[in-house]
Formats: sequence, C-alpha cells, structure tokens
Amino acid sequence: MKTIGVVTSGGDAPGMNAAIRAIARVAYSKNLHVLGFEKGWEGLLTNTVTRLTPRNVGGIIQSGGTILRTSRCPEFKEKKGIRKAAETLDSNKVHGLIVIGGDGSFRGALELSRETDALIIGIPATIDNDVFGTEETIGFDTAVNTAVAEIDKIRDTAISLERIFIVEVMGRTRGFLAATIGLTVGAEVILVPEAKHEIKEIFQIIKENIAKGKRSGIIVAAEGIGDTRELAREIEKEIRREVRLSIIGYAQRGGSPTARSRLLASLFADKAVQLLLEEKGSRIVGLQNGRVADIELKKSCTTKKPLDLSLLKLAKVLAT
Amino acid sequence: MKTIGVVTSGGDAPGMNAAIRAIARVAYSKNLHVLGFEKGWEGLLTNTVTRLTPRNVGGIIQSGGTILRTSRCPEFKEKKGIRKAAETLDSNKVHGLIVIGGDGSFRGALELSRETDALIIGIPATIDNDVFGTEETIGFDTAVNTAVAEIDKIRDTAISLERIFIVEVMGRTRGFLAATIGLTVGAEVILVPEAKHEIKEIFQIIKENIAKGKRSGIIVAAEGIGDTRELAREIEKEIRREVRLSIIGYAQRGGSPTARSRLLASLFADKAVQLLLEEKGSRIVGLQNGRVADIELKKSCTTKKPLDLSLLKLAKVLAT
Amino acid sequence: MKTIGVVTSGGDAPGMNAAIRAIARVAYSKNLHVLGFEKGWEGLLTNTVTRLTPRNVGGIIQSGGTILRTSRCPEFKEKKGIRKAAETLDSNKVHGLIVIGGDGSFRGALELSRETDALIIGIPATIDNDVFGTEETIGFDTAVNTAVAEIDKIRDTAISLERIFIVEVMGRTRGFLAATIGLTVGAEVILVPEAKHEIKEIFQIIKENIAKGKRSGIIVAAEGIGDTRELAREIEKEIRREVRLSIIGYAQRGGSPTARSRLLASLFADKAVQLLLEEKGSRIVGLQNGRVADIELKKSCTTKKPLDLSLLKLAKVLAT
Amino acid sequence: MKTIGVVTSGGDAPGMNAAIRAIARVAYSKNLHVLGFEKGWEGLLTNTVTRLTPRNVGGIIQSGGTILRTSRCPEFKEKKGIRKAAETLDSNKVHGLIVIGGDGSFRGALELSRETDALIIGIPATIDNDVFGTEETIGFDTAVNTAVAEIDKIRDTAISLERIFIVEVMGRTRGFLAATIGLTVGAEVILVPEAKHEIKEIFQIIKENIAKGKRSGIIVAAEGIGDTRELAREIEKEIRREVRLSIIGYAQRGGSPTARSRLLASLFADKAVQLLLEEKGSRIVGLQNGRVADIELKKSCTTKKPLDLSLLKLAKVLAT
Repeated sequence: MKTIGVVTSGGDAPGMNAAIRAIARVAYSKNLHVLGFEKGWEGLLTNTVTRLTPRNVGGIIQSGGTILRTSRCPEFKEKKGIRKAAETLDSNKVHGLIVIGGDGSFRGALELSRETDALIIGIPATIDNDVFGTEETIGFDTAVNTAVAEIDKIRDTAISLERIFIVEVMGRTRGFLAATIGLTVGAEVILVPEAKHEIKEIFQIIKENIAKGKRSGIIVAAEGIGDTRELAREIEKEIRREVRLSIIGYAQRGGSPTARSRLLASLFADKAVQLLLEEKGSRIVGLQNGRVADIELKKSCTTKKPLDLSLLKLAKVLAT
Repeated sequence: MKTIGVVTSGGDAPGMNAAIRAIARVAYSKNLHVLGFEKGWEGLLTNTVTRLTPRNVGGIIQSGGTILRTSRCPEFKEKKGIRKAAETLDSNKVHGLIVIGGDGSFRGALELSRETDALIIGIPATIDNDVFGTEETIGFDTAVNTAVAEIDKIRDTAISLERIFIVEVMGRTRGFLAATIGLTVGAEVILVPEAKHEIKEIFQIIKENIAKGKRSGIIVAAEGIGDTRELAREIEKEIRREVRLSIIGYAQRGGSPTARSRLLASLFADKAVQLLLEEKGSRIVGLQNGRVADIELKKSCTTKKPLDLSLLKLAKVLAT
Repeated sequence: MKTIGVVTSGGDAPGMNAAIRAIARVAYSKNLHVLGFEKGWEGLLTNTVTRLTPRNVGGIIQSGGTILRTSRCPEFKEKKGIRKAAETLDSNKVHGLIVIGGDGSFRGALELSRETDALIIGIPATIDNDVFGTEETIGFDTAVNTAVAEIDKIRDTAISLERIFIVEVMGRTRGFLAATIGLTVGAEVILVPEAKHEIKEIFQIIKENIAKGKRSGIIVAAEGIGDTRELAREIEKEIRREVRLSIIGYAQRGGSPTARSRLLASLFADKAVQLLLEEKGSRIVGLQNGRVADIELKKSCTTKKPLDLSLLKLAKVLAT
Repeated sequence: MKTIGVVTSGGDAPGMNAAIRAIARVAYSKNLHVLGFEKGWEGLLTNTVTRLTPRNVGGIIQSGGTILRTSRCPEFKEKKGIRKAAETLDSNKVHGLIVIGGDGSFRGALELSRETDALIIGIPATIDNDVFGTEETIGFDTAVNTAVAEIDKIRDTAISLERIFIVEVMGRTRGFLAATIGLTVGAEVILVPEAKHEIKEIFQIIKENIAKGKRSGIIVAAEGIGDTRELAREIEKEIRREVRLSIIGYAQRGGSPTARSRLLASLFADKAVQLLLEEKGSRIVGLQNGRVADIELKKSCTTKKPLDLSLLKLAKVLAT
C-alpha cells in the first residue's frame, strides 16, 4: 500500500479542510495511506506529521481554516530547506505529495519537485484567485460572499447618511476579489492594481452620481492600489462631503466555506488523487472551461493569470 | 429609440432583481427604453406595465424575490392568451422581450415567439437549475447555500443526539439541488429522482456507518423521490433508531442572492441586451464551458438537461 | 479539591457548549475538578464520564449542539434508574451536579436530588423558553433568530407571488417561540397553544389585509396549535387563493449560538458554580428582572411559566 | 385628530426602521396622524416632511438604516436652529415628537423641549448602548452579533496560523460593545476606555496563554482605547510573533436587525406613543429591570451609564 502526503501552505483559505477531508477519503477508497504534514512547509522540515484517516477528517467539511495549520516558512526558501523537506518525504516513503495553497506555495512545490522523486500535485486554494491554470481557487467564492455581505450592511449606513464609502478589500497585487465584489455589490467605482486610475475620473463619476440623485456611493478598492486613507482625504477635499473608509480585513480569510468552495475542494481533491494513481506529478489541478482539469506546475508558476477587465466596464454601466 | 420589455415568470429565484437592474441599466446605456410587465405573463395579458429606469431599479441588486412580481398564469397556456400577449407587445411597440424564468417560462416564450414579431430572449433563473443550455441558472447557487447553512445546523443536533436525519430539499422532478447540497454537506446518502434507490442499499449504508462509529447520518432527498415520511418510518423500523425528517421549504427560494447569483444575473442580462441589439431572437443565454453563451430557445425547451451522476458516486466516497 | 459534575440533557440547544466551557473554566479558577457525564442521564446510569479541563473545552464557545451529547433516557424515569445515577455520583465523589437542560431535565434533576447528597443546580437551556424561574433560556434567542432569518426569506417569495404562507415553528405545548418570531417578522397572524383561535377571525384578518392592499400574508403557528396542513386547506377554500405551508424544522435547534445565548450561558454557568461553592443545591439559575438570580428547583418544576399574551395584541396592531 | 412627528437622528442603528414602522402603526390604531421629518434635525430646520401611513412603512421591519435618513446637523447646536425647529413643529401642528437616536440626539431633544410646547419622547437607538435609562438600546444586539460573526471567522485564521489578533470594534468613549463582544467570542484580552490597561499585564496574559498551549489569541479593543496599530507593534516587539490588526468597521452599524433589536424597537415605539397619549413629554423610554419603562429626558442626558466591569473579570476567567 502506497503513502501520499498532504500539506496546506501559505495563508489559509475556506475550503482547505474540505479538501483535506476529500483527499483522505478518496485515498482511503483507493487503498492509500495519507500523512498530513503540519504547519505548512515547516512540518516537512521538522517531520511533524499526523496520519489522516476517514474518521479523523470527519466533521470538518464546514469549518474554516485548516486542521493541518499553516505558516510562512522562510527556511523553505533556501536550497537547504528544500533538501530537508525532500528527505522527510523520502524517510516517510511518501509516493506523492498534494500541496494545498496559492501561487507562493506552488513555487515552493516546484522547487521541491526538483529535489525529490515524490510526485507533486498542487491544489489551488487561496482567497486571492490569482493562480494560473484555474478559473477559480478554493476559498475565493467564500471570501467574495463574506465581503459582499459586509458591504451590503455598509450600504445601509451609506444610504441613511447619504455618504461616500471607500471599502478596501484584500488583494495586495491582484484585483480578482475587488472586481467580483465590486460588481456584485453594485459599487460605483472599482479600483484594482491591474488598471490605472485617474483621480479626476473618480471625482467625475462621484459628481455625476450626486447630480443623478444617487444617495450613496461605494468605492471598492483592492489593498494593492495604494493609500486608501489618502484617497478618502482627496475625495473629501474635492467634493466637500465626508468620505468614510472601511477595511474589510481578515474575516475574508475565515468562516465556513460556501457550497461552491466545498464543491471545488472535493472535485480538486478527487482529481489530485487520481493524478497520483496515474503516476503523474508536477501538475496542478484546476477549473478550465468550467471543468476539472490539470496543467503543468511549472506553467502555473511562471504565467500570470489575467484579470478580465471587461468586468470593470460592465460594473461601471451597471452602477449608472 | 427602441423599446424592450422584461418579464419575470414562474417561481421566483434570488437574483431576478439583479437581472432586472442590469437589463435596465445596460439598455439605458444603449439608448433603449425598458418596460417591465408585472406579475408574470399576466401583465402581458392585462397590459400592466411599468417603465424601468436606471434610478427606479436602484437598491435592488441584493434583494430576493422580483420587484416585477410573478405568477402562474393558466390563460397563457391557451392560444387565445398567447395572442393577447402578442397584441400587448405590439401595442407597446416592444421590439424585444426578455423573459426571466425557468423551463416552463421558456416553453411559454417559445409559443409566444410564434405569434409575435418581437424578438424573444430567455434568461434562465430558477433555483432548480434544470434548464438545458446553461451550466447554472440564476438563483441555484443561493438556494444551495441556504440549504447547506440549514443542514449544517441540523448536523449539530444529529451529532449531539446521535441520530439519522432525512432532509428533504426542493426538486419535484430533478436532483440538481439535492446532488450539490448533499455533496457539500457531506450527506451519507443522496436521493434524486434521476436514479433508482434500493431501500436495502440505504439500510446497508446506514448500518455500515453505525458500525464504523459515525455518530450521525444525513440523508438528503429531493422532494420528487417519493414519500420521505414513509422512508423515515421504514428506516426507523429496520435500524431501530429514531429517524427525523426535516423539510427545507420555501426559504430556499428567497433571501439575498449570493455573489455568484448576482454575477450570473449581471452577465446574462448584459448578453441578453446585446443579442437584441444584434437583432437576434428566439434564443436563451447561458453558461457554457464556464463562459456566457447562447443557444436556440427551441433547443433549450426540447432537450432534457442531464444530471452528472458521477457527483453522487463521489459524494458516496467522500462520506465514507 | 472537590469534584463537580456536568450533564446536558433532553433536546440540545445552542449555547450548551458555551455553558460547558464556562463551567469548566470558572470551576478550574476555584480549584474544582469537573467531570462531564456523556449522553445525558444515560452517562449517569452507565458511568460514562470524561474529565473537563480548561484546555479541552477550548474552541467550543461558538459551536452548536453539545460536546457531551445528550439523549432521551426512559430508564431515568424509574426509581431504579434514579438510584443508579445517585450511586454514580457517589462513586465519583461528585459534590455538586450541574444539569443543563429544559423543564423535563429539571424534573429528572428534582427526582435525583431526593436520592443523592450531591448538590444539584439547574441551568435552563432549551430553545422553547418554557422554564419557570427565568425570563430567558439559553438557546431561545438563537432559535428565534434562525427562524426569523428563514421567514424573512419566505417573505420575498410571498410578496413576489402575492401569497399567504403558514410557517410552522417549534413549540409543542408553548408559544414563546411563535410569539417572539411572529412579532419580529411582522406576521399578520400568530397562533400559539395558549390562546384560542377562531378560524373565522383568521379568515377575517386575511380578507381585511387583502382589502387594504397588503401583497402577502405570513401566519406564524406553533406546532402545538393543531394540524397546520388542514388549516392551510381551510384558508385556501375560504379565500380562494393558494396558501403555502412551510415547516421550520430542526435547524432551529442547531447552529452557532447568538451573542446573547453565549452571554446567558456564561453568566448562568458562573452563577451555578458560585451556588455550589456556597453549598447551595436544589436550585436553578435564571434571569429575573433582567438580572442573574436563582430559585428553588422544585418551584421551577411545579410552576407553569406564563406567556405574555399582550405581545400578541401588539403584534396584531403592528401588522395592520 | 392629533399629529405626532418622528425623527431619526445621529448615527443610524439597525432597528430604527422597525421603530418607525411600529410608531406609524400604533399611532394609526389610536387615530393619530404621523409625520416623518427627513435627514435628522435637518428636516426640522428645512421642514422636509413626509406622511407616514401603515402602508408606506410596510416591508421595512427587517431593513437596516433608516428610511427617514439621518445626518449630523451643526446648525441645530445653536439657539437659532433650535427655535427654527420649534417653529416647524408648531407650523405642522405637531402635538408630540418622538426622537429616535442616541445620547447626542437626546441632548438636542432636551434643548428643543425648552423651546416648544410639543411633547418630546426619546427612543434610544444606537449601537453604542451608552444611553442612561435603558439597559439596552435598539441596534446594540445587532452590532454585537455582526462583530461576533466576524471575529468567529478571524479566529479560524488565528488558529490556523497560531497568531495573535487585535480586533478593534466601535466605541469611541464607551466599552459596552467591546465588553459584550469580547466575552462572547472568548477574547483573551478585552480593552475598554473605562478601565486602565497596563501594557505589561497584556504581555503577561499573552505569554501565559502561549505557555498553556493556546494556539491563538484574540484581543478585542474599543476604538477609544488609543492607537491599536501602535499596540500591535509593541506586542510584536515583546513576544516576537506577528500580531495582526483587524478593524471591524461600519458594517457594525448596518444590516438586518436581529430579532431582539426588532423586538425592542416595537416595544419602545408602543410605549412612546402611549406616553404621548397620556400627555407626557420630556421622557425617554427604555428597558429597566428587564421591562419597558421610562425616565426623565433630562436625567438621561445628565447621567453617565455605568459599564459593568465585572463582565471583564468573568471574561478573563472564561478565557483561561
């Protein structure tokens, strides 16, 4: 009977537990042993490992976070760390390792794949949705809905006080979250790192909206677009109305996964185990053309996933 | 300037309002007038109509139900009714009509298209997800999440009391809801109208689970599979434990749409208006291979959308 | 160092875990040992017991159900069972026992108090709120909010389709849930077991509402008022409109407790341990005049808690 | 037939709409006319007024914000403004005015009561709960639950990454929100403006918790306690672990009111109209000893509501 390993790495994302559960149970049905490495790459360096069985992954499909925990692991960025991890895989007779995480984790996985014979498969799980090779990552849908529910509440106050709100959502370098959240809350302005924003254009949109009789304004901004506090001040100065800033923080990372995040987690996990059974490695699973598929790990790591900017255009028309 | 009409028909679905808002605003940006017919087909028979403008569709993106209201309309099933509706379109100079609804509504739309010169476009919105030509309908994701949130709560009691629960979800003829809900709550058994269920097999799964030490059991059943009350009694008799029945009712139809239902509503609405601008009619918009596309209305009405039964197999493995 | 015991009994209620956690931690701060008896009274008959420590009650404040599990236990209704339980308390050197449950559990506790020297304190936890001696039980606020959130969703459909809905909520003998839920969802009619309902009066209210131009109607009915299915049929026959029935089921028992249910659980648990430290027994804690207090267990068991019927009168005015 | 006025003032709070609805309908049942002044005190200065009827307050019981809107109104702080408002009441023949708001609004109401013959009644509605004369204000329970739900999500990440989080909640001068939220999320440290906090004590608690094996730490801080960003830095420096800051912002003000906020709104509104019918003025309604009561407006304005610091002691024991 063969052994496979699982590790969750980088920031946590809702649905990681659903993926762990699915891996353990699909693997069990195929007569595989499953080892969970704890605290991200750190567990591969320290050989901190726990056996995953169908029973001990029970009752976690609906819970946020990751029972394997995770961490940022600077040692893993050096050759020495990578080799230590490869040795751990070897000493545990791990035939294949499933890495659940985002693009940073996948770059680590790529490095590791060069030092080990173990097959490595990536499952994209990050609220940022910034992994090339999948139309959607595990956790993205949950993070979007968490932010949307909050902004729906903020809209109540915005309307009651006839005020402009800037809502900063997660996304240090990418605007997937901001674009989808902005469109689905009906934001008047959406600011993403992928597009240039002229401050004058923002002023103009706000002034036009006031002229049209719109009683509130929501600006959804990715954290990576710059200093939102400063932006609030500039708008206040220009339009002579109070502008409020609200930062939707870490709550976006947690919480019970939505059905969609659970479904993706289950489908991706199933596919990942299948790939290992077919002796395939150095690949990631993902959603392509609405279907579960897989691509090369290296390609995923070296290609930037494009943001569909036409969403922003549509959002603008919809917030007329 | 041309005029287009909108009607919501059949059962309501969360996201219908987001679609109405998007149609009104996209149309406005293209210099089209928009008329909303009220109470479903009834509004076309009685010429009950209201003008939709960017301002009066404000603040509805997040609300359940439909501001145009809907109804079941038996008169519309007869030739006379259809002709009356065609006259109403004519007298209002409606160039194109967008019908937001499910497969029943689309069959009505197909009949109507034979009696009128107005172009007719369907936007699939039904919690049942049973429309051919789209991988997902507006409202489906919301209904799934509503049921999942409820069953997560029921699981608390099931575990605390170590009990079997049958949870009946909507779906008179189709099992899309039951399959997705069942998989994402980790149901031990999923019963859909599309598959035969041997009672002995159900007994066996439950007994195996008890033997494995599982402390609770959730059976998700589509309403169309037969008498769930009787099923509860049979299981109780066989396994000599209390079996509880919970029916997740109309709450599945309502509530604030999820981000995904709002997104689909916005994208479908945009596409529907584009089709009318291209002078295309007798088509429905939908999600195909993960992208917004369109197919013939007639094809949608006359083809049964298949349920992916492999989901049920996976669900079974995952609930091991 | 003294030992105290804890048991959760009867139906589960959200907040039971918060109470268990609070008991364990307050007791620990007072140098007491805590034993948890599992599966309700059954654990006292079979001596199934687990030690509760500040660490192993971590992370449960927000979870529904009860980690000690619960059960209905027919043997405990007989003298022999009660004596067995008393022996278990004795053999475990339990100085005081805290019983978390509803009025049925408290009647059991009263019987047990007659056969043991252990001090017995009750903490009222039941979604039904039907315990004399407390203005509110742990779990009630959560169950009310769960039902309210569901009925808010049903209202969307009721308005869109202009329909009457009967919503059956829990409450076999008492109407606390129905009254509070009904008032806070703006129900047009509220039916509780404590009041007589003339069917003609219901017809009249509905007809008046239709005449006033109200587009929907919600009737909230406690399950104990009789056959709601039959009621739906009668109303349908009289007013010649479709009437829908929705039963809000077991989801009301589960789910993450509201802040208020967690707060009551914490305050009640603290008080219960204090009473034991003062060597007081045969009492229950509760909320009286908005403050944490305690009364005799016997008095609680033998007195019927009155339902404030003026709430129903107000609700009627508010749904004008 | 007499006329009464209603105004919502200051920050909005969930349940204000439920109160407006209840005032309009109770008043209607007593043959009173109801006028709603828009945008807070501004509406009294500009005579911007709308008639409230049982029909036009329909469908708002569950919505956040206030349909009458609100504003900060600097002119109302001067004698001239107050007199203008008194004239508006006179010219509209307003016999009694119900002011829905917090302590700032009540101070304005007190000033106004000295310049008008109209009877003035205050209904406490503010998420801050800082009004003397009531144990709870409309909106407080909702804001607490909103924050608790968010922090429950943050806890997932805190545990997965074994990290300390500071969560800043609303409360510029008072700690009611922070205390209740902190206790009900199981925060390890709670910081309120009413108590002195020694930084060394905070260090010690965190270090003890790490020593005990606690995998995460939540510090709930009222915004009024000082610079939370600086606090995060100091703790990071001392314990040499990453400390994250999350600010729960304006979402706390909005959203659908909880059942409890709706219930208080309904009861307070009913009482306020009764007081006017009894020709009583210059009073506020409130919850005292768990029951609806009333006290002098002046007393409410001039007395500081005490925060029960024993809650913080209990919270500390409970987070052992």
